[in-house]
Amino acid sequence: MPRRFKSLMEESERKRDSRIVLALDVVDEDPERILLKSMSIIDRVNEYICAIKINFHLILPLGLFGGVRKILERARELGLPTIADCKANDIGSTNRLIAENYFRAGFDALIANPFVGWEDGLQPIFEVADKMERGVILLTYMSHKASSEGYGQNVYEAISGKIRPQYVIFAEKSLLWGADGVIVGATYPERIRGIYNILGDSVPIYSPGVGAQGGDIRMAVLSGSRYLIVGRSIIEADDPSKSARSIRDIVNEARKSD
Amino acid sequence: MPRRFKSLMEESERKRDSRIVLALDVVDEDPERILLKSMSIIDRVNEYICAIKINFHLILPLGLFGGVRKILERARELGLPTIADCKANDIGSTNRLIAENYFRAGFDALIANPFVGWEDGLQPIFEVADKMERGVILLTYMSHKASSEGYGQNVYEAISGKIRPQYVIFAEKSLLWGADGVIVGATYPERIRGIYNILGDSVPIYSPGVGAQGGDIRMAVLSGSRYLIVGRSIIEADDPSKSARSIRDIVNEARKSD
Repeated sequence: MPRRFKSLMEESERKRDSRIVLALDVVDEDPERILLKSMSIIDRVNEYICAIKINFHLILPLGLFGGVRKILERARELGLPTIADCKANDIGSTNRLIAENYFRAGFDALIANPFVGWEDGLQPIFEVADKMERGVILLTYMSHKASSEGYGQNVYEAISGKIRPQYVIFAEKSLLWGADGVIVGATYPERIRGIYNILGDSVPIYSPGVGAQGGDIRMAVLSGSRYLIVGRSIIEADDPSKSARSIRDIVNEARKSD
Repeated sequence: MPRRFKSLMEESERKRDSRIVLALDVVDEDPERILLKSMSIIDRVNEYICAIKINFHLILPLGLFGGVRKILERARELGLPTIADCKANDIGSTNRLIAENYFRAGFDALIANPFVGWEDGLQPIFEVADKMERGVILLTYMSHKASSEGYGQNVYEAISGKIRPQYVIFAEKSLLWGADGVIVGATYPERIRGIYNILGDSVPIYSPGVGAQGGDIRMAVLSGSRYLIVGRSIIEADDPSKSARSIRDIVNEARKSD
């Protein structure tokens, strides 16, 4: 049973002709200024993005039910889906509480780490998502340098006697568990391709890591990324609006040549 | 270079003759009541515990710089070290910000997941911990049912041609990276033993999962756990003070027979 989140994203994508997810990672010493800057950036770039991803950059200084909720309300007014990048990886009872809190605050989806497994691990998150009609996106290959240490390691499966990459196992679990999306770093286009070969169009790939982290947008799109997660290249630009539009256009151009 | 946190824990342990870390996982619909209950439990059990662990049960509804900071202040007044159970598993720049926020709020240590690896992964957390003189505790084998899916899987290492359990690799990384502690579920005493054989007394083992989750205190202690993390058995007891004292005594008895 597909959850509502995937169609919410597709709708937003069509409406704004954009596959850019804004990573709202605003950094400032003063929480008040973080909130003001976040609101200002949303107002300036919202017509060029299809969703907003929020992580601990905002959650820790502003509080989930403080400043973050205000931002979520603004996103909702603008019709932009929101993703909690909390990388949940706890035991079942805590994962359940984590999901309930993020969804109650207004997030449409959250990101979790499949490394914790299913029983008494991620299962409660999927249950809460089903009940509250929200989405779950799973980490499959992260964008940073040491990603190969964990996501890229080879796992020996005693039952089959096979050796398979961790990210392949995670991609298969994403299908099995009914995830609404997976994260694969734009910095590793060959991994995007490998994971896309497993998932096809049934579980969309979200790719962070373009711009500041060095990933190439065109390569990511051609390799199978559906959504590009962009933070610093927009937020730290002199003109965030212009930057968002230009990145949106590069993605759309790359899609045409796909 | 050992950080200050390990000696802070040893001091607290000696002073109170306790190896119990209270998992302050208070659940309530109303944030005000969560704060009041948390304060009340600390006041009632503080003489029988050696530290307090706080996770998203409090961080999400109360806010890190709201209610959580008040609890951290109370813990400091009582001379109890505090651990942020945030299970950090992000990219380097976000991990750095996560550590800075938790430590600035007053936490003495945080928990991170070694699965993200070192470069541009956990390295910045260790750097911030060094600079601010705080501790880092790494997940090595969690207490829940599906723990075997990730922490218990077998990893094939191409260079050596060896197949080794994930938790052994994590334990070795804890030594290599200079962690101040590791988490190993009390529900898996044979894993505690295996990890203790690698770490000896140089990296203390913290074990959650006794009580509600079914782990046996005596078995955990005899297998090598130094600190027992206890939540529901104390918090949900009719008399939290009596329960904390009794669990403290069971741990101390088990140590004697070790």
